[in-house]
Amino acid sequence: MRRYAKKRSDRGLPPGTLVHVGEKKAERVRITIVDYDESHFLEKEAKTVEECFPFKDTPTVTWINIEGLHQVEIIEKIGDHFEIHPLLQEDILNTEQRPKAEDFENYIFIILKMIAYDEKKNEITSEQVSIVLGKNFVISFQERGGNVFDSVRERIKYGKGRIKKMGTDYLAYSLMDAIVDNYFAALETLGEKIEFLEEGLISSPTPRKLQSLHELKREMLSFRKLIWPLREAVSVLEREESPIIQETTRIYLRDIYENIIQAIDTVEIMRDMLSGMLDIYLSSISNRMNEIMKLLTIISTIFIPLTFIAGVYGMNFKFMPELEMQWGYFMILSLMAAIGFLMVFYFRRKGWL
Amino acid sequence: MRRYAKKRSDRGLPPGTLVHVGEKKAERVRITIVDYDESHFLEKEAKTVEECFPFKDTPTVTWINIEGLHQVEIIEKIGDHFEIHPLLQEDILNTEQRPKAEDFENYIFIILKMIAYDEKKNEITSEQVSIVLGKNFVISFQERGGNVFDSVRERIKYGKGRIKKMGTDYLAYSLMDAIVDNYFAALETLGEKIEFLEEGLISSPTPRKLQSLHELKREMLSFRKLIWPLREAVSVLEREESPIIQETTRIYLRDIYENIIQAIDTVEIMRDMLSGMLDIYLSSISNRMNEIMKLLTIISTIFIPLTFIAGVYGMNFKFMPELEMQWGYFMILSLMAAIGFLMVFYFRRKGWL
Amino acid sequence: MRRYAKKRSDRGLPPGTLVHVGEKKAERVRITIVDYDESHFLEKEAKTVEECFPFKDTPTVTWINIEGLHQVEIIEKIGDHFEIHPLLQEDILNTEQRPKAEDFENYIFIILKMIAYDEKKNEITSEQVSIVLGKNFVISFQERGGNVFDSVRERIKYGKGRIKKMGTDYLAYSLMDAIVDNYFAALETLGEKIEFLEEGLISSPTPRKLQSLHELKREMLSFRKLIWPLREAVSVLEREESPIIQETTRIYLRDIYENIIQAIDTVEIMRDMLSGMLDIYLSSISNRMNEIMKLLTIISTIFIPLTFIAGVYGMNFKFMPELEMQWGYFMILSLMAAIGFLMVFYFRRKGWL
Amino acid sequence: MRRYAKKRSDRGLPPGTLVHVGEKKAERVRITIVDYDESHFLEKEAKTVEECFPFKDTPTVTWINIEGLHQVEIIEKIGDHFEIHPLLQEDILNTEQRPKAEDFENYIFIILKMIAYDEKKNEITSEQVSIVLGKNFVISFQERGGNVFDSVRERIKYGKGRIKKMGTDYLAYSLMDAIVDNYFAALETLGEKIEFLEEGLISSPTPRKLQSLHELKREMLSFRKLIWPLREAVSVLEREESPIIQETTRIYLRDIYENIIQAIDTVEIMRDMLSGMLDIYLSSISNRMNEIMKLLTIISTIFIPLTFIAGVYGMNFKFMPELEMQWGYFMILSLMAAIGFLMVFYFRRKGWL
Amino acid sequence: MRRYAKKRSDRGLPPGTLVHVGEKKAERVRITIVDYDESHFLEKEAKTVEECFPFKDTPTVTWINIEGLHQVEIIEKIGDHFEIHPLLQEDILNTEQRPKAEDFENYIFIILKMIAYDEKKNEITSEQVSIVLGKNFVISFQERGGNVFDSVRERIKYGKGRIKKMGTDYLAYSLMDAIVDNYFAALETLGEKIEFLEEGLISSPTPRKLQSLHELKREMLSFRKLIWPLREAVSVLEREESPIIQETTRIYLRDIYENIIQAIDTVEIMRDMLSGMLDIYLSSISNRMNEIMKLLTIISTIFIPLTFIAGVYGMNFKFMPELEMQWGYFMILSLMAAIGFLMVFYFRRKGWL
Repeated sequence: MRRYAKKRSDRGLPPGTLVHVGEKKAERVRITIVDYDESHFLEKEAKTVEECFPFKDTPTVTWINIEGLHQVEIIEKIGDHFEIHPLLQEDILNTEQRPKAEDFENYIFIILKMIAYDEKKNEITSEQVSIVLGKNFVISFQERGGNVFDSVRERIKYGKGRIKKMGTDYLAYSLMDAIVDNYFAALETLGEKIEFLEEGLISSPTPRKLQSLHELKREMLSFRKLIWPLREAVSVLEREESPIIQETTRIYLRDIYENIIQAIDTVEIMRDMLSGMLDIYLSSISNRMNEIMKLLTIISTIFIPLTFIAGVYGMNFKFMPELEMQWGYFMILSLMAAIGFLMVFYFRRKGWL
Repeated sequence: MRRYAKKRSDRGLPPGTLVHVGEKKAERVRITIVDYDESHFLEKEAKTVEECFPFKDTPTVTWINIEGLHQVEIIEKIGDHFEIHPLLQEDILNTEQRPKAEDFENYIFIILKMIAYDEKKNEITSEQVSIVLGKNFVISFQERGGNVFDSVRERIKYGKGRIKKMGTDYLAYSLMDAIVDNYFAALETLGEKIEFLEEGLISSPTPRKLQSLHELKREMLSFRKLIWPLREAVSVLEREESPIIQETTRIYLRDIYENIIQAIDTVEIMRDMLSGMLDIYLSSISNRMNEIMKLLTIISTIFIPLTFIAGVYGMNFKFMPELEMQWGYFMILSLMAAIGFLMVFYFRRKGWL
Repeated sequence: MRRYAKKRSDRGLPPGTLVHVGEKKAERVRITIVDYDESHFLEKEAKTVEECFPFKDTPTVTWINIEGLHQVEIIEKIGDHFEIHPLLQEDILNTEQRPKAEDFENYIFIILKMIAYDEKKNEITSEQVSIVLGKNFVISFQERGGNVFDSVRERIKYGKGRIKKMGTDYLAYSLMDAIVDNYFAALETLGEKIEFLEEGLISSPTPRKLQSLHELKREMLSFRKLIWPLREAVSVLEREESPIIQETTRIYLRDIYENIIQAIDTVEIMRDMLSGMLDIYLSSISNRMNEIMKLLTIISTIFIPLTFIAGVYGMNFKFMPELEMQWGYFMILSLMAAIGFLMVFYFRRKGWL
Repeated sequence: MRRYAKKRSDRGLPPGTLVHVGEKKAERVRITIVDYDESHFLEKEAKTVEECFPFKDTPTVTWINIEGLHQVEIIEKIGDHFEIHPLLQEDILNTEQRPKAEDFENYIFIILKMIAYDEKKNEITSEQVSIVLGKNFVISFQERGGNVFDSVRERIKYGKGRIKKMGTDYLAYSLMDAIVDNYFAALETLGEKIEFLEEGLISSPTPRKLQSLHELKREMLSFRKLIWPLREAVSVLEREESPIIQETTRIYLRDIYENIIQAIDTVEIMRDMLSGMLDIYLSSISNRMNEIMKLLTIISTIFIPLTFIAGVYGMNFKFMPELEMQWGYFMILSLMAAIGFLMVFYFRRKGWL
Repeated sequence: MRRYAKKRSDRGLPPGTLVHVGEKKAERVRITIVDYDESHFLEKEAKTVEECFPFKDTPTVTWINIEGLHQVEIIEKIGDHFEIHPLLQEDILNTEQRPKAEDFENYIFIILKMIAYDEKKNEITSEQVSIVLGKNFVISFQERGGNVFDSVRERIKYGKGRIKKMGTDYLAYSLMDAIVDNYFAALETLGEKIEFLEEGLISSPTPRKLQSLHELKREMLSFRKLIWPLREAVSVLEREESPIIQETTRIYLRDIYENIIQAIDTVEIMRDMLSGMLDIYLSSISNRMNEIMKLLTIISTIFIPLTFIAGVYGMNFKFMPELEMQWGYFMILSLMAAIGFLMVFYFRRKGWL
């Protein structure tokens, strides 16, 4: 039951025990450090965890990005050095968490989901991203490497936009913004699938397509389950009275919030479309049935009376005057034709043909 | 997927980068300036953006109306001169925004949607209007030119009503009022389409009409998605403790609020009607099916026994006494007729004929 | 689209312009004045509006009742003399308002709907009543004359109950109470229609009745749309900290509130019944279909094999030993009868007959 | 429309006019007085109302129970002596009230519904009980006599439990508790009816049973309508800052509250079951239909081709070589049998037989 | 009606009377005592209740676990010694309680449900667990013995995790955590049943499976009814200003809260899946029906015209020229074959074959 039951890391274990829950998605854990302020920029890949430690207390903005969660001891070392609560370390490792944002004294802890459409598997995939936002550092944990944060890295490197002038809160915002932007790409793909299915349902409704419809419905549902708590989390961040988040950053958080609302609206509209498509499917099915039934009715109602007439003149009575008549056969044939035409005419008028 | 996925202006770009999102709906950008107070009136079309700048600090009420959003630099120049936050400039250009009202220190920023029924395309169209409401100026941004604000302009010109005696807040209210009034025209058109479809569904239910039904449902849905946040936005304006909105204007905002509620009520009733029409459609379909089935039953049940009798007397047994009788044939014919009439009578009594 | 689209009075006109929206329901405008306190009673019909003016500042309770809204200037004169805000005058004239109650400094403004069942048109009709409740006066505006307020007038005249001892707030309560009482009469009529339809649906389900069902559903819906905001309005009145409403009157407002809740409950139960009736209708339809299908099956399955046997002995083979037998014909007839009886017996046992 | 429209006592009458609304359920009004404190106990039946009056100001706990509401003057006398507001007297007499609890200065007024299952009429019946809870007295009004309060009376008489040591609030709680306990008996009966119906629906689905289903649904609905406001009423009592309710009694009110929640849960589950049963019914119906259709198909598809073959050899062509063959007849018979068996085999493999 | 009606312990009895409500699930009552602090550990099974009493006031953390509720006097003795309110004792014994958490001055009272999947009975079973959380003691009451708390006991014994260093609140948290962890196991089993059923519904839809579907729906519903109030209860605990719950424990309660939310999400998704499966079932049924109908149509429409032709040439007219022709028979046979093939070809093109 991979899809909906949570694999608790600590079933029977004491809470706070660190166990990686989820698939191992990255080959090896990769740690990159970006350190900058308005006048300075440093980027390097750390070979050992310990390389990150000196950046904890520097006044510059430090962004530590960890790709891959399967090496528990790395998370633990970082967590302990940066004083992240053991339960949060467990949350980082357990990739079945709901999006949330929580304010601790020295840092804000954020969990969100990267949602992408996997072209190969033809399904929505989600990956957990945890962000620890401190006064001077941002630590982001990804399940797997990817290029979603590249644009942020570049903006820092080349000093595009405001990012180099602003603090860690703006950096965290930029990371979240990059993730939320991706949602719309996934929604576009889903939208195309829905439109494609809709056409298919009308032209050739099959139970297989109905099943696809329900699969899409479920994907929309899981999308919704990921995005609703995110809305709440961002709303928490926006209102938070934390010294870490500066007043000037709030309007950006508000912007993300609105993007999420828009994604939610889109999801709701898609869900509604899918519901409507079920009606169309069922109506389409019953329409085909009708067409078949009508043909049966017409063929039957035309030929049954004619066959009866033929049956009558196939009777072997001694005395049947019509049989003796010279043109009896042709008269009866004409009668049959006349009845047939009359019926066809009647059905035409009724609009059945 | 034009319909529901947002085209973010800044996918990968730093936030606040100005890019026009949406179709280019106007040929060229047109800037008109109306400047007035109780005793004075000036109207002119600005050739360059810079012509607007001197009006920023005049004590008179200035209304700058910009039609067409595709020339990003114009928006940028105005935005920078009037100190509009870059993110809001981005919102003005991105025509996929939800309606909202936000209070900044020196101005209130309002987004709403003009909704019209496009007779040619036979569908609801929506156009984004952004309003920046300052102490001495109102700047309105339209996607395309149109005559929806003409009545407001005229009222100012000829001093009709209270408008010339009141401040920028009343002007902004008048613009919003003009837009909301238009909603009812769109609703009337939709109402007529619904009634037209309803009659069609009963007289000749086809899957094509079912699809129209679902299209109407979706249009109602998008209408609803545009109008619900507007209700919230106006409610925010009404309660806002901003010095820009005077006490005497609140009752007018309340009035708009009530109009919006009424539009929402209408939308909900229409949605309910559409749901009911689905039931009627399905029932209508199954009723037609019944009529066809009944005919089949009657024709079959009448002729099958008669055909059997004919079959019996078509058997070639050596010794079949009835065949030898003088009036056998006619007796059997009469028997058949009697059975037929009996059956017709039976069906009549059952109410099937 | 008379039913659901609002006819705004001021499409294009400046807000506060007085235009009567709605049908002209009364022949001429009739103004009656009732003036009383504990020891004094005066009732007269005013010929001109101006006759009402002196009562504005008398310490006695004055009730001015205006029947008919189509003479805009009358409303305007009264409104201006009693200092009613132009937007509220517009509300009084626009009969498409939602029920509401609003507290202004010198008066409370209340809109509610009189709901009655029109026996002739066989539908629910609603009429707007606006009440302006001041310290010393109550002005009520009705779309059309009627006897709904007669009981109140009589109670004042003959000093029944507490009404003569109490202030304008109690008078306004009495008017509202008279209106809400009427709702139950309308609900009783609707209830009878529902029960009548229910019986009809089971005994002879037709698409026409389904349509009646949906019409009833819509009437319940519009009823609901009128009564829900009223509940809110009365709740506002009950909690209002206005000096116009005395503490002793609150319990009466609470009483109206409870009546409204009860009406809402009744409406909800009726809506639920109507939903259930749709199921019964559909099931009833499919049951009739089943009965017809069963007959077809039985007739067909009995005669098709028999006809086959007859066909076999109608074959013209040279050598068919049965044909030569003396009792062949009767044996075959008996065989056919036996098969027929067996089948009837089988169907009986299956419970199909 | 006995079931859902309220019979207002005062349609046209001034509010506070006392009229009994509801059926006369008791033969004569019976008044019993129980007076007790920790050391003292008195029980008597009052012949006249006036006998109750002295107990108003005694420091002991007095419980006056009135069975039967049709003698309006009795209620009026008691109401006036105990200073109950005329509107509340009207509420006591009008048995169509919703459950509620209201705090007045000197007493708390409670309305609830006794719900019982009437074995004879085979339906849920409800009876209104009003309780006036004062500092030293509890007055309870029942529509009809009954033994539901006997256990409370006995506990007082024999000093069981805490009741004799506690005040009027505990007595009122005990009465309410006795009533709520009865709900579970009614729910058990309803539950049995539901289970009985469920079995019936699967074994022999008839429209009559569907109607029973909808009747049960409606009974659940009215149950719900009675129990929801009660929940709110008890919650009001629990939180009320009245000097009449002592701190120690709150936990008991909390207990009633939880029982009510449990009853609500049960009602919701039952409603859900009934909804599911509708699906099962419809599926059961369509399944029977399928069985019949399958038989028709099989009989028809087997015999129609065979009859055709028989028809072919019944043709009267001069030259038909098969007819001349010695074993032609038997060969054809064998062919027919073979075709028949093949078809039966085919249907078996398809899983239709 | 074992399933949904509450068996109140005190129907007619005074409240607070202790009666065990529920099945006797354990053979004998088993009392175990675990007493520990950071440096000390004691575990023993108590033979009499009185053995627990001395632990009430020791400063160490004491956990008294009682398995089996049928010996009322044991609960009473413990309850009285530890000063648990009689109504709560009743709650402990009545196993039909909803989950809740209530703060009393000296202890916090918690009720939750252990949910497990009973492999033998093939259904979800639930067992009530009550926890009394005092400053120095935790008393847990289980309906039946079980190993769900073994992991907690072991962690205390061997000093794993933080548990030995923390107070009674952390112990209570650990017990609750152990219970909530079990929910996911039950959900996994349910998930597997749902998937198994889903496959079955598509491959062979039977009314029996529909019933299983509804049984699963009901199980999900009861799961939901148990888990929703638990969410609220934990939320109460988390926010409670009680001195018993230390600040450091709150984050653990938050963790449980999130697990419960996740379980709720899972339940909701499963409910949604089950709803979708009903559609698939119905569509699957109607699809099979279609397949059968199509075959009937094809067989009938092919053979009915052919049979008619055979009937024509079986007529006994004196003068039928075709009968005399040498190759008449073969020509007609060919004609029949041609018509048959044409029809098959037509059906193919229509996509019916």
